Amino acid sequence: MADVIVNEQELMRFGTQCLMSAGSCEEHASKHIAVLIEADRRGHYSHGFNRLRGHYVADIRSKICSPNSIPSIEKETVSTAVVNGNNSLGAVVGHFAMDLAISKAKETGVGWVTVRGSNHFGIAGHYAKKALDEGMIGLAFTNGSPYVAPTRSATQLLSTLPIALAVPANNGDHMLLDMATSSAAVGKMELAKALGKPIPQGWALNKSGKPTTDPVEALPSGGGTGLPLGGEEETSGYKGYGLGLMVEIFCGILSGSDWGPHIRKWKIQNQIANLGQCFIALDPSVFTPGFQDRSQSLLDTCRGLVPLDPNLAVIIPGDRGRAREQKAEEEGGIRYKIEQYKNMLLLAEELNLEPPKPIHQ
Amino acid sequence: MADVIVNEQELMRFGTQCLMSAGSCEEHASKHIAVLIEADRRGHYSHGFNRLRGHYVADIRSKICSPNSIPSIEKETVSTAVVNGNNSLGAVVGHFAMDLAISKAKETGVGWVTVRGSNHFGIAGHYAKKALDEGMIGLAFTNGSPYVAPTRSATQLLSTLPIALAVPANNGDHMLLDMATSSAAVGKMELAKALGKPIPQGWALNKSGKPTTDPVEALPSGGGTGLPLGGEEETSGYKGYGLGLMVEIFCGILSGSDWGPHIRKWKIQNQIANLGQCFIALDPSVFTPGFQDRSQSLLDTCRGLVPLDPNLAVIIPGDRGRAREQKAEEEGGIRYKIEQYKNMLLLAEELNLEPPKPIHQ
Repeated sequence: MADVIVNEQELMRFGTQCLMSAGSCEEHASKHIAVLIEADRRGHYSHGFNRLRGHYVADIRSKICSPNSIPSIEKETVSTAVVNGNNSLGAVVGHFAMDLAISKAKETGVGWVTVRGSNHFGIAGHYAKKALDEGMIGLAFTNGSPYVAPTRSATQLLSTLPIALAVPANNGDHMLLDMATSSAAVGKMELAKALGKPIPQGWALNKSGKPTTDPVEALPSGGGTGLPLGGEEETSGYKGYGLGLMVEIFCGILSGSDWGPHIRKWKIQNQIANLGQCFIALDPSVFTPGFQDRSQSLLDTCRGLVPLDPNLAVIIPGDRGRAREQKAEEEGGIRYKIEQYKNMLLLAEELNLEPPKPIHQ
Repeated sequence: MADVIVNEQELMRFGTQCLMSAGSCEEHASKHIAVLIEADRRGHYSHGFNRLRGHYVADIRSKICSPNSIPSIEKETVSTAVVNGNNSLGAVVGHFAMDLAISKAKETGVGWVTVRGSNHFGIAGHYAKKALDEGMIGLAFTNGSPYVAPTRSATQLLSTLPIALAVPANNGDHMLLDMATSSAAVGKMELAKALGKPIPQGWALNKSGKPTTDPVEALPSGGGTGLPLGGEEETSGYKGYGLGLMVEIFCGILSGSDWGPHIRKWKIQNQIANLGQCFIALDPSVFTPGFQDRSQSLLDTCRGLVPLDPNLAVIIPGDRGRAREQKAEEEGGIRYKIEQYKNMLLLAEELNLEPPKPIHQ
């Protein structure tokens, strides 16, 4: 069946109503939905409306999350802070903490903010990218539900522990890296399962600790464990494991939130998430003058390389998402697979809301 | 033939004399040699005395490097600085910049120092680890000679761009991650070549852009290119490429040093290195109290996992190096392959120095 295209105003209307009908105020709901729309617009469907029903709406309806709480600063120096998210929506906490990091970077060149008491904040890149508006470098990290096995084990211990980095260049050009430190984000496997597709070798082990390409047995619900970036030990998976530990230290250990196996399991929402997150802003203007020109030169140099396959141009992190954003703009909305759209219809029915209207094609 | 064991006093005597006979003052020479000894002690032979002859001695003798220069601070805020290494020895620059980052972290919780005008500084972990003495988290990064190909290309564009992270726990326990963001450090391939061994699939492409297991054609000198962590695009190599760009941005782009393809080629020492480096110190005590206990708990949890193979315990980054340090202590010195020891004898002859004396076994 054909894809369905929905324009962003309609997605914002529907998504905000979903969170509000569950119990969120409008301001917080729309802030959170903007992150999900950005994920879908950039093609990261695993982190967009795909999560609306089972994750965010469920957490608000069951009062596990406190969507209307306001985050607070618990401790700070001129360059650092600990923020308590007070169990508010992830996007509310993320914006609060990243804004704080940016304001500190304006004073001292660097702002390093760690957060506890947060919830799933969508794509980490959304927050890193905020720094670009100030000509700054932004970093964002989060922990989450245990799924990834440390090298040499098959225990669901760590989450996929993503790193996001936004770096400004000239005239709005930029690099935007947003990657799980595992081989693949859980959402990508959920999407493969929903679409009935196998996953590549090297993403996960099954519950017996053997490599698998079946998303059903690879997923947390099937007892599977994710592999760290690099895969197994022989192919340098211990490096991805080490990077994951770095992110957990910046998020859970520095902030005192839950961490690793102490975080609630995937899809088991009977306890508050109490996630840890970390946000860094760095002002290049306090370092050597001419940063953006050099940054542009690096990006241009990479993009200008001769590709191995003439049909696959060399790109830099974020280029693919930007191309999809442009396509969405051209098409007047975001393109969804029919299965994804049907989930929205189901949610509309459940919450007794007007379903998101597709645009005429 | 049997291995050769040399005690550390003897290595220090010999190494320092080598650099001094080339033109370094004693203070700088011994500071630099201490880094090489630590690399060998921890089993990172690719970054130790293996590089003494062709790299450090050659650079000093040819006056490409200025071993007796003192680094200077070019610009600073309470939390950041730009350091000019003034082309001094890498270890001299690294200690200067990391000490500065630590002193800033004592004031504001975080110190972020970027460096230009530096030289190869040995293992990045040596500098990250300095933060542990102050109960702090340390990070160190460096750029270097171009070798790694961005995903979809086979161009020697970026260096192996390592990340080092040291994290304190209780009673001296700690995590020490020290990893190239490429699949493998160049030194590991040089060592494979020296030992006549093949390299694993996924480390490198040959000059035709095809995967290779032959270290000769994988090495920069053979026209090969390193693959980023993750390997090719299908196995998430674009993530390693993204992490490499992050390190290059922290080192070369932020500092204004040479970067990427503008850095001199491997083993071609006809221009100054002008490397970029980056050092970060973060004081956990400005965040949520109890950091070291939580950090210890994370490390203990990982080490306590049931291993897939009962003979391969789950470890954390740095444990392997620590075990080797312990073995060196038990054996009374550092164990070298005969080929490595012979290179030291050759160097002693060239520089007319007393060769390093092995210990009786």
